[in-house]
Amino acid sequence: MQKLAVDEDSLLKQLQNTWYQTIPVSQFMQITPVSFSGQHFSVTAPLAPNVNLHQTMFAGSIYTLMTLTGWGMVWLQQQLAKVEGDIVLADANVRYIAPITADPVARVDWVDTDLSALQRGKRVRINLTIELWCADKQCAVFEGRFVSLPKSRE
Amino acid sequence: MQKLAVDEDSLLKQLQNTWYQTIPVSQFMQITPVSFSGQHFSVTAPLAPNVNLHQTMFAGSIYTLMTLTGWGMVWLQQQLAKVEGDIVLADANVRYIAPITADPVARVDWVDTDLSALQRGKRVRINLTIELWCADKQCAVFEGRFVSLPKSRE
Repeated sequence: MQKLAVDEDSLLKQLQNTWYQTIPVSQFMQITPVSFSGQHFSVTAPLAPNVNLHQTMFAGSIYTLMTLTGWGMVWLQQQLAKVEGDIVLADANVRYIAPITADPVARVDWVDTDLSALQRGKRVRINLTIELWCADKQCAVFEGRFVSLPKSRE
Repeated sequence: MQKLAVDEDSLLKQLQNTWYQTIPVSQFMQITPVSFSGQHFSVTAPLAPNVNLHQTMFAGSIYTLMTLTGWGMVWLQQQLAKVEGDIVLADANVRYIAPITADPVARVDWVDTDLSALQRGKRVRINLTIELWCADKQCAVFEGRFVSLPKSRE
């Protein structure tokens, strides 16, 4: 496991603050970063604010948790690489495999991507696969195409 | 336009109550059915609870609005056909076309589907395309595969 040059807890706290202060839905859903190793990132949310009428996790909440897990991974990598970029989701595909009856954990691995183009004013595309696990069972898979746009672009 | 045998306003109010009472996120997002003709259904949500850090609509909120628009269309058709079924989303694909800077409207057309199999204890699959419009511009497209499961199944 890669040794982080920055403090993991403070980085995850900063990410959570960014979400809660700018995306009201993320705070309502109580989306919470769990761990980040440089390569792996995981995020959770309690079931209570995220249920549907079957008392399992609502499809929209599942999707939002996975979207923010992918977005968060790109944000974290940009912090490590000391580059800036506006991260957006261009498209996504989600497949629901099993109902989620307990607190879910969304997990993503970083796919090595050169982010330095952002500093040269170029956009960077990042394809990420996010898996949702619930009690050691894979319950959903999300494939998202994220784009990071340079802050000062033409 | 098909003349509804039931009162549209009361049906939409019943749908909104179902959402708000069973899916807390839908109430937080203030998702609101707009109109239903039997063939067309449209749904909106205000921007304020649904923004991201760019002050446009959050990708997760866009997805949730469109998911519930599709879910709602199946629910409404089940009411008209006087059949019961547990509606779930099996998988979905969403493509974001343009940022949403004002109150969006999600629109779906019903694809004629025989729901009577539900009464014979069989599941029904319904593929729906939902479009998100914002100030006369198409801003996102969602393709979802919904499944309705018979209430009393083997």
